[in-house]
Amino acid sequence: MSIGQSIPRVDAWEKVSGKAKYTDDLVDRNALICKVLHSTIANGLVRKMDISGAESIPGVVKVITCFDVPDFPYPTAGHPWSTDPAHWDPMDRRLLNKRVRFYGDDIAAVVAVDEISASRALRAIKVEYEEYPFVLSPEEAMKEGAPLLHEESPGNILKSTKIEDGDFEAAIKEEGLICFEGVYETPIVQHCHIESVTSWAYMENGRIVVTSSTQIPHIVRRIVAQALGIPWGEVRIIKPYIGGGFGNKQDSLYEPLNAFVCKQVGGRLVKLELTREEVFSSTRVRHAEKIYLKSWLRPNGRLVARSYTAYSNQGAYGSHGHGIAAKGTNVFRQLYNDEKARRTEIFTVYTNTAAAGAMRGYGTPQAVFAVESHIEDIARSMNMDPLEFRFLNMMPVGYVDPFTKNVNRFDSLRQCVEKGREWIKWDEKRERYANQTGPVRRGIGMSLLWYNTAVWPISIEVSSCRMVLNQDGSIQMQLGETEIGQGADTVFAQMAGETLGIPWEKIHVISAQDTDITPFGFGAYGSRQTYVGGASIHKAALMLKEKILRCAERYNKIAAADLDLIDGSIVQISKNNEKLHSLAELATDTFYHKEHAEHLTVEVTAQVKSNALSLGCAFAEVEVDIPLGKITLLNLINCHDCGRLINPKTAEGQVHGGMSMAIGFGIYEKMLYDPKTGELLNGNLLDYKLPTILEHPRLEGQFVENPEPTSPYGTKGLGEPPTVPGAPAIRNAVLHATGVSINSIPLSPHLLFSEFQKAGLI
Amino acid sequence: MSIGQSIPRVDAWEKVSGKAKYTDDLVDRNALICKVLHSTIANGLVRKMDISGAESIPGVVKVITCFDVPDFPYPTAGHPWSTDPAHWDPMDRRLLNKRVRFYGDDIAAVVAVDEISASRALRAIKVEYEEYPFVLSPEEAMKEGAPLLHEESPGNILKSTKIEDGDFEAAIKEEGLICFEGVYETPIVQHCHIESVTSWAYMENGRIVVTSSTQIPHIVRRIVAQALGIPWGEVRIIKPYIGGGFGNKQDSLYEPLNAFVCKQVGGRLVKLELTREEVFSSTRVRHAEKIYLKSWLRPNGRLVARSYTAYSNQGAYGSHGHGIAAKGTNVFRQLYNDEKARRTEIFTVYTNTAAAGAMRGYGTPQAVFAVESHIEDIARSMNMDPLEFRFLNMMPVGYVDPFTKNVNRFDSLRQCVEKGREWIKWDEKRERYANQTGPVRRGIGMSLLWYNTAVWPISIEVSSCRMVLNQDGSIQMQLGETEIGQGADTVFAQMAGETLGIPWEKIHVISAQDTDITPFGFGAYGSRQTYVGGASIHKAALMLKEKILRCAERYNKIAAADLDLIDGSIVQISKNNEKLHSLAELATDTFYHKEHAEHLTVEVTAQVKSNALSLGCAFAEVEVDIPLGKITLLNLINCHDCGRLINPKTAEGQVHGGMSMAIGFGIYEKMLYDPKTGELLNGNLLDYKLPTILEHPRLEGQFVENPEPTSPYGTKGLGEPPTVPGAPAIRNAVLHATGVSINSIPLSPHLLFSEFQKAGLI
Repeated sequence: MSIGQSIPRVDAWEKVSGKAKYTDDLVDRNALICKVLHSTIANGLVRKMDISGAESIPGVVKVITCFDVPDFPYPTAGHPWSTDPAHWDPMDRRLLNKRVRFYGDDIAAVVAVDEISASRALRAIKVEYEEYPFVLSPEEAMKEGAPLLHEESPGNILKSTKIEDGDFEAAIKEEGLICFEGVYETPIVQHCHIESVTSWAYMENGRIVVTSSTQIPHIVRRIVAQALGIPWGEVRIIKPYIGGGFGNKQDSLYEPLNAFVCKQVGGRLVKLELTREEVFSSTRVRHAEKIYLKSWLRPNGRLVARSYTAYSNQGAYGSHGHGIAAKGTNVFRQLYNDEKARRTEIFTVYTNTAAAGAMRGYGTPQAVFAVESHIEDIARSMNMDPLEFRFLNMMPVGYVDPFTKNVNRFDSLRQCVEKGREWIKWDEKRERYANQTGPVRRGIGMSLLWYNTAVWPISIEVSSCRMVLNQDGSIQMQLGETEIGQGADTVFAQMAGETLGIPWEKIHVISAQDTDITPFGFGAYGSRQTYVGGASIHKAALMLKEKILRCAERYNKIAAADLDLIDGSIVQISKNNEKLHSLAELATDTFYHKEHAEHLTVEVTAQVKSNALSLGCAFAEVEVDIPLGKITLLNLINCHDCGRLINPKTAEGQVHGGMSMAIGFGIYEKMLYDPKTGELLNGNLLDYKLPTILEHPRLEGQFVENPEPTSPYGTKGLGEPPTVPGAPAIRNAVLHATGVSINSIPLSPHLLFSEFQKAGLI
Repeated sequence: MSIGQSIPRVDAWEKVSGKAKYTDDLVDRNALICKVLHSTIANGLVRKMDISGAESIPGVVKVITCFDVPDFPYPTAGHPWSTDPAHWDPMDRRLLNKRVRFYGDDIAAVVAVDEISASRALRAIKVEYEEYPFVLSPEEAMKEGAPLLHEESPGNILKSTKIEDGDFEAAIKEEGLICFEGVYETPIVQHCHIESVTSWAYMENGRIVVTSSTQIPHIVRRIVAQALGIPWGEVRIIKPYIGGGFGNKQDSLYEPLNAFVCKQVGGRLVKLELTREEVFSSTRVRHAEKIYLKSWLRPNGRLVARSYTAYSNQGAYGSHGHGIAAKGTNVFRQLYNDEKARRTEIFTVYTNTAAAGAMRGYGTPQAVFAVESHIEDIARSMNMDPLEFRFLNMMPVGYVDPFTKNVNRFDSLRQCVEKGREWIKWDEKRERYANQTGPVRRGIGMSLLWYNTAVWPISIEVSSCRMVLNQDGSIQMQLGETEIGQGADTVFAQMAGETLGIPWEKIHVISAQDTDITPFGFGAYGSRQTYVGGASIHKAALMLKEKILRCAERYNKIAAADLDLIDGSIVQISKNNEKLHSLAELATDTFYHKEHAEHLTVEVTAQVKSNALSLGCAFAEVEVDIPLGKITLLNLINCHDCGRLINPKTAEGQVHGGMSMAIGFGIYEKMLYDPKTGELLNGNLLDYKLPTILEHPRLEGQFVENPEPTSPYGTKGLGEPPTVPGAPAIRNAVLHATGVSINSIPLSPHLLFSEFQKAGLI
């Protein structure tokens, strides 16, 4: 039994000893270097470019401008492809853009023999722009007369959706209802993965090979081919170990350009690595959202109807587009249960900021922040205990979502809340902190969490798995699903070992993906991998075990039905699982059998047509220094029901990482754009305030394990959920401490000071 | 139809443009360098080693001596493993040897940060030997009192075999028989592949990874594990493109030592590359053989009985051992048909020279040289036309070999002879050159060729193949069988394309093998790959096509039986093969189908329980300058029946390469050992006389195509046969020109001068 055990990570030794190879460790030192020229205006047109100076710099091999690239747009989002064009992601960018739409857009690329010549060449390119006015927020962008970013999107609206559940207008007319309103805002933030965006490309037998730090090699393959207009089979993507992605690398960022410039220099090896500043200015960010909430309830606290209107800042290009705002509406529609009706209207709007894409949580951190701040405010106004108010209104057990068919099978939310309540001593501290005075006060708050695993039925969910038996009874396992630092390889090994009956140490997971040979799978996103990848591992392992037992039948002349594989040995069931021989002995016989030699391998695709609710909550305790506008986070606990835990230790690691991002999202992080130029002002790790270890309390992660029946291993998503409830829990704790409802994050001193002033506290 | 077409090699562009990556191109420049210390005595014991001087040299990381390695012997031959110990190859060497058995034996290894420090350290090691007498030839080694190389082999006989077909003693008593005798000798030669023996190793997740220039990655995996005493699954071998092997790399040469030293330095990356001199002195060579032939025939020329006694020089270690001499006996026993009986006795004998292993032809060049020289001498003595004499006595059509069950299905030998006879103008020139005088004379001669494809039933023959469909209708194909410069990848692509119904350009052959992920197969030897690999390609392609048509049935709602895949399109058979849609369209639908998404792949093992005779001949025309002892080769033609040609151009390339090696074997090459010290005297490419382009006539290769029924593509071995008949054809041409029978090769001026003197010509 390896499932449920905190085995050490299979890649731990390699990674802590510095032996593990990442993209940049693998590139040949003779690689040409590509550097990208970014626009220095936020909106406009490149009229002319003079590259003669750049071309004359020694070491420069090629200068490619936005006038040299094919004029067909391509999508970048890391979504499964669909044969239905209605499901295609926005195709609104070229490899390099003449029509620039944000400060930092890609307008030219230089290939040189080294970084210095490439950088010099960038500086030597002279650009003549035609400048347009620009907009930085959706509300500005939707105004009449606002500059239009994309011809095909009037009003700069990439997409909008309106949904009504029940008869909303009738519902809110019920007599005696109390109405609450609130407007909530979340910031643009960046993923800040340790490893930069980096790739290198060369050509081999007429095909293009790109090694890249990506979460989604098989999808990047498709996108590179689309961007270059070549058959998909002529692209090969290789993904080594990667140093974090958090959704930024669930986009095809610079692989298409890297591939294109490689082709332009005759297929020579070209490396393209972004600086940290470029990662900030020119890759993806989290969508800032402004969310308007309105709730109608009875005096007993029961929600009757609510409305949700959200404006999601898409930035300059479509990327993942409307999916983020749409996922947010599921939080609104499912986390609480309106007795009669609800209305949702969401707008995804282009602005002249960096393109927003996927980021851990995928729209749910924004929506949960709004919904859980709003709920807290209501409970407080109604003078109800926030937990009791939630228990009264939250998604009931047995709820079936009409679209996804998801069933809320267990009382997970309440179970998680009770764990958090106990650990943080909710009842005692709510009491203790009730009537504070003075400049420094403490408070506790909490937030529920709603997340659903994987992307069905928005897109298909498939995962393929291959297993290869060795002569010593060990196996190699390959999946399209990717290890991106989260421990995927480790839990995959545990799952395979469990189903096969082989110790996990004997499962050699091939960590790197190579789209030429790795089974097809979509990669790391949507917290899907244990859930969907688990399905293919289970299917493959059962098939391989059946093949093994069939060989064992021949070898032992005992019916396969009376044989089992346990802990690496073939045993006879009817003789009390007596060991007959090792799998190694059987495997060797099978490899070299004079009559029946066979290399035992299996390869299967599992298609998953379900998803699973991954619920939980966070509780925060803060100390607020009111005059300083400073929050000290004293305690933070996340409780999750992600089904059965495959590896408690790595699960806890995921929770800790997510909580850390929630702390940044709630208190510290925000990308600031210059309103005069549209330039990003704090695009580096000094000015952009990531929380450090000093800003972290001891992080507590706890679990409720309700085995998920739609997963063969009883598991569901845990990659993203931990990052979701922290910010509103902190915000609600600040409210508890100070009595001030602050409706936007981060809760920086700058904001707190002005809010506390407004509230008359200072 | 791609089979039978001379498509360009799929790796041509990469290789001629210098882009193709070989082992040494791929190693990280920070690799530690390992160099090996070789013994400077031919036989004896290392008593002591002082490594203190070596260890004090800056840059030296580790010095490992023969006293530091595990004391268990391992085999090195690249043969399929057998679960029957009786079939195991000799296990008679350690990673480093205290008991040294030839001048050049491995006694210590140094690991250093660079080559210079490593070389300095080698020179600083002080070795104290106990020296024994040594022997350089089997006949010396078998003498009573000769020094014994391996305790377990009395008389230095690794193995001997005696076979009698028919009642030999009775047969030779027939009255009126004429008896002929001859003794024939072949030299020790080296493969002289362009790329050296090179590998590099590192550890990853506790497992050892070796990238090596090898023909047999899956076998090397097993041997490295055996040599290190670890489970086989803990070794991973990667084989990039390789620059020739010719059988030397059908042995595990330095991979085990490389892996061992890597472990000794904590798994750091260590490269081990031999110099050319080391390749000569310390890798493998072709077995020198001395063969005694005796034939009894009737006055009409019909062979009644023959005997064959061979002494095969094994050198110091077992390697491929007795297999080489044994394969030679098949030439003797099958190429000619004795009416009554024959007797064979062969001895494989250890001597203090470099270990002999596999080399293109695997014993058949030696045996064919002896048999075809002997036959020529008999025909000449009997005053019969050499062709008529052969036609009278050679293996008849319908012959079934009792051991292999091989059937001589076609009149291939005669058909090949007729082609060669016509091309070289045999009848005219035999006549014209009949009565020459003067110092410079011309002659023509010929030789038949016998070879059988692959190794069944000596060992098992299996090959596994995996195919992976892409969205654009192209596929990747992986086999354990290796491209070693011979064009394997190209003919594999043609075979797969043919059976699938996809243009060969759309078959992306994964050229490199990685034992972690590449389907199991034994690799390049025994001219087996088109034959055995072809079987697995055929099986896999049929399965993949069936899967594709099953998807096409659903897609088109037309029964699969009415659908076909032709030239990359799905067509409807009943509508005259009307194109319905491209495979790309179907593949994309299958990848992303909302209900039936599947990644179409197949992986199968084909076990081949047959082998196939690959017959042919060579005709040579020479001009002999008698006083100079110099042969000018005017014309050389090889004719082969290797079944159906997959790619006539690459087949011709194989033939040319083999003919070139035959020229070296016949006229130029011989490794010379100092009788006083046992040291190799000409172990470099200046002193060892490989023929250059100046020594080559225009090479003519022709084919007879009798499709082999035991192969799905009608093909059989062509890798080795071309190197077999050239030397005896040249020898017989010299006989025709001068009347002098020379019974050993190479026909160097040194030898010719003395033979012509003996014959009274000078």
